[in-house]
Amino acid sequence: MPATTTLLQATQSEAVTAIENDVLLSSSLWANVALAGLAILLFVYMGRNVEAPRAKLIWGATLLIPLVSISSYLGLLSGLTVGFIEMPPGHALAGEEVMSQWGRYLTWALSTPMILLALGLLADVDIGDLFVVIAADIGMCVTGLAAALITSSYGLRWAFYLVSCAFFLVVLYAILVEWPQSATAAGTDEIFGTLRALTVVLWLGYPIIWAVGIEGLALVQSVGLTSWGYSALDIGAKYLFAFLLLRWVAANQDVVGQPTLGTHSEETAPADD
Amino acid sequence: MPATTTLLQATQSEAVTAIENDVLLSSSLWANVALAGLAILLFVYMGRNVEAPRAKLIWGATLLIPLVSISSYLGLLSGLTVGFIEMPPGHALAGEEVMSQWGRYLTWALSTPMILLALGLLADVDIGDLFVVIAADIGMCVTGLAAALITSSYGLRWAFYLVSCAFFLVVLYAILVEWPQSATAAGTDEIFGTLRALTVVLWLGYPIIWAVGIEGLALVQSVGLTSWGYSALDIGAKYLFAFLLLRWVAANQDVVGQPTLGTHSEETAPADD
Amino acid sequence: MPATTTLLQATQSEAVTAIENDVLLSSSLWANVALAGLAILLFVYMGRNVEAPRAKLIWGATLLIPLVSISSYLGLLSGLTVGFIEMPPGHALAGEEVMSQWGRYLTWALSTPMILLALGLLADVDIGDLFVVIAADIGMCVTGLAAALITSSYGLRWAFYLVSCAFFLVVLYAILVEWPQSATAAGTDEIFGTLRALTVVLWLGYPIIWAVGIEGLALVQSVGLTSWGYSALDIGAKYLFAFLLLRWVAANQDVVGQPTLGTHSEETAPADD
Repeated sequence: MPATTTLLQATQSEAVTAIENDVLLSSSLWANVALAGLAILLFVYMGRNVEAPRAKLIWGATLLIPLVSISSYLGLLSGLTVGFIEMPPGHALAGEEVMSQWGRYLTWALSTPMILLALGLLADVDIGDLFVVIAADIGMCVTGLAAALITSSYGLRWAFYLVSCAFFLVVLYAILVEWPQSATAAGTDEIFGTLRALTVVLWLGYPIIWAVGIEGLALVQSVGLTSWGYSALDIGAKYLFAFLLLRWVAANQDVVGQPTLGTHSEETAPADD
Repeated sequence: MPATTTLLQATQSEAVTAIENDVLLSSSLWANVALAGLAILLFVYMGRNVEAPRAKLIWGATLLIPLVSISSYLGLLSGLTVGFIEMPPGHALAGEEVMSQWGRYLTWALSTPMILLALGLLADVDIGDLFVVIAADIGMCVTGLAAALITSSYGLRWAFYLVSCAFFLVVLYAILVEWPQSATAAGTDEIFGTLRALTVVLWLGYPIIWAVGIEGLALVQSVGLTSWGYSALDIGAKYLFAFLLLRWVAANQDVVGQPTLGTHSEETAPADD
Repeated sequence: MPATTTLLQATQSEAVTAIENDVLLSSSLWANVALAGLAILLFVYMGRNVEAPRAKLIWGATLLIPLVSISSYLGLLSGLTVGFIEMPPGHALAGEEVMSQWGRYLTWALSTPMILLALGLLADVDIGDLFVVIAADIGMCVTGLAAALITSSYGLRWAFYLVSCAFFLVVLYAILVEWPQSATAAGTDEIFGTLRALTVVLWLGYPIIWAVGIEGLALVQSVGLTSWGYSALDIGAKYLFAFLLLRWVAANQDVVGQPTLGTHSEETAPADD
C-alpha cells in the first residue's frame, strides 16, 4: 500500500476512534456543527430584507463566519485535521501522547479575518488598516499552529506562544484604540462598542485556555474539557457575535448605507497637498 | 533514511509512475502545461500596447491566471501534489485505492481569486465586496480539498461537498445579482455579461464532475477521464476567459480608464450623512 | 505509536540534531532570531510618537515584518519546517540527502507581502494594483516551495524555478515601472527610491543563491553557507528595510498624512465619464 495512503488513513482512523470513545470530546464538536448549521439557516433568513449595498456586504461577510466554522468542526470530526503529539521533556505530560486539534488553528486563520472584516466594515475603517490587522491576525493563528505542533522543545512551544501573543497585541491595539474613532465617525459606535467588548473578552479566552489546557501547562489534562473550552468560546465569538451584528444591520440599513470603505476617514482627515 | 525523505519520495515516485502509465491521464496534464505556457506568451504580447493604468491592472491580474495554472499542472506531473486515497465504506470503490489530485484544490484557491479579481475590476465593484467574495471562494476550494482527502467516512466527504457548494452559492449570488449593476454603471456590462456567463456555466461543471467522477458517486471510474473533465473546464474557465478579457481590454482602454476601485458605486450611491 | 506522532517527531528530532551539530548553520538561524527580536523592540520604541493615521498604518505593517521573521526562524530551529530531500538524478548530489529549509518559502509568503504592502502604502498606489502584486508575490513563494520539495525530477525543479521567476518579473515590473509614478505624486519618491533599490537588489539575491546553492546547481554544497546566504539577505531586506522606512515615517508624518489608499492616482487620472 502506498506510503501516503497508509499515513493519511492511519491518522484519520486513530483520531476518529479516539473522538468516538470520548463523549465530552465528541459533544464539544457536534454541538458546534449543529449550532453553526442553525446559524447559517437563521442568517440567510435574517438577510432576506437587507437591501442597502453596504448592509448586504456586511451580511455576506457575517454569513461566512458560521460556514467556515462548520467546515472546521467537520474537519475535526473526520480526523482529517487532528493528530497525536508526543510532548517534549519539560511538559507536564512529557513522553505521553496528546491529541492535538491542529485544524482549529488553521480554520481560525480563515474565520477570524471574517470577524475582523465585519467589524472593520461596520466601523468603516481604512482598507489599508484592515489589511494590516488581518495580516497580524493570520500571523497569530499560524504561530499558534506552530506552537501546537512542536515536539522537539518545550521552550520553543512557549516561544511561539509569545510570538502569537505579540501578533494578538497588534490586533487588540487596532480594535481598542484605532477603530472606535472610525466607528464614531461612521455613526455605528454603539453596536461597534458591544461587538468589540464581546470580541476582546472572548478572544482573550483562547490564549488562556491554551496556557492552562493540555497543550500548555496542562493544569487541565482532559482533552474533552480543553476542547469544550474552545468550543464554548467559538459559540460566543462566532454565532452570538454574528447574530448581534446581523440583527443590528437588518434594523439599521440606513446608517450603514454608503458602499465605500474608508469614505468617512477621508472626510474627517482630508489630504493636505 | 529519515522518515520525511522516505515518505515524500515514495509518494512522488508512486504518483509519477501511475501518471506515466496512463496516457489519458498524462495527456490531460501536459495539454494544460502547453496551453498555459502559450497563453502566458500570448498575453504578454497582447499587453504590449496597454497604457491606461486601470487597463494595465486588469492585464496584470489576468496574466497571473495562466501562471498559477502552469504551476498547478507541473505540481501534479511531478507527483508533489498527488496522493492515493483508500475510499471509505459506502463509496462505490470502498477499500480500493484511488488517485487524488488534491493539488488542484490547493491551486484553485489561488487561481480562482484572480479570476474573480479580474471580473471585479472589470465591473468596478466595491473593494469590500471583492474581499467577501474572494474569502467565500477560498472557503469553497479549501472545503473541496477536505472533501477529497477524507478517508474515514463517506458521509463526511459529502458533508464537505455540501459546505463547499454553500460557499459557491455566495460567490454565484455576487456574480449574478450584485456585480452586474456595478458593471452597468461602469459601462462594461457587455463584456462582463459574456465573461460572467462563461464563468458561471463552466464553474458549475466542477462540482458536477466531482459528484459523478471517481471521488464522488464514481459513475465515471476512470481517473484519466475525471482528470480530463477538470482539465477541459480549466481550458475554458482560465485561458479562454483570460483571452476574451484581454482582447476586450486592449481594444477598450478608454472605457476602463479610471484607476480607483469602487468609484462608480460611490457616485451612484452617495453617503447620506 | 500512531503514525503521525512517529513521523512528526522523527522529522523534528532529526532536523534539530543536524542543526545543533553544524555551527555555521545554527548561527545563521539564531542570528536572525536575535536581530528580529531586537528589531521588534526597537520598532515599538520608534513608533511611540507616530500620531498621523496613515503613518501609524505604515508603522503597523512594518512592525509585522520582524514578527513574521522571528516566527520563521523559530520554526526552522525547532525542526518543524525543515525536512530532508533525496536529490533526483541529474542533480550534483543525486541520491544524497540534503536538508531543505522549506519553511523559509512558506513564511516568505507572509512576510514579503508585508514588505510590498509597506512600499505600496508609502507610494500611495491603487489598492487593486497592490492586490495583483501581492498575489504574484505569493505565487512566487509557493512555486519556490514546490521547486524545493520535488524529488521526482531534476527538470521539474528548474521548471518551478522558472515559473517562480516569472511571478517575480510581475512584481519587479510593478516596483520598477508603475509604483515610482505614484510615489512621485505622493511626494514620497526619495525614500521610495532608496527602499526600492534596496528591495530590488536584495530580492535578486534569493534566486541567485537558490541557483548556485545546494538546492540548485550545488556549486556551493554547504547547507550552512547556503543558509547564511538567505539569512544575510533577510537581514538587509527585512530589518534594515524596515528600520529605514520607520525612521523616515517618524520624521515625515506630515507627508504621509492622508489616510486613504489610492487618492493621489485618482486625482492625477480622473475618471473620464
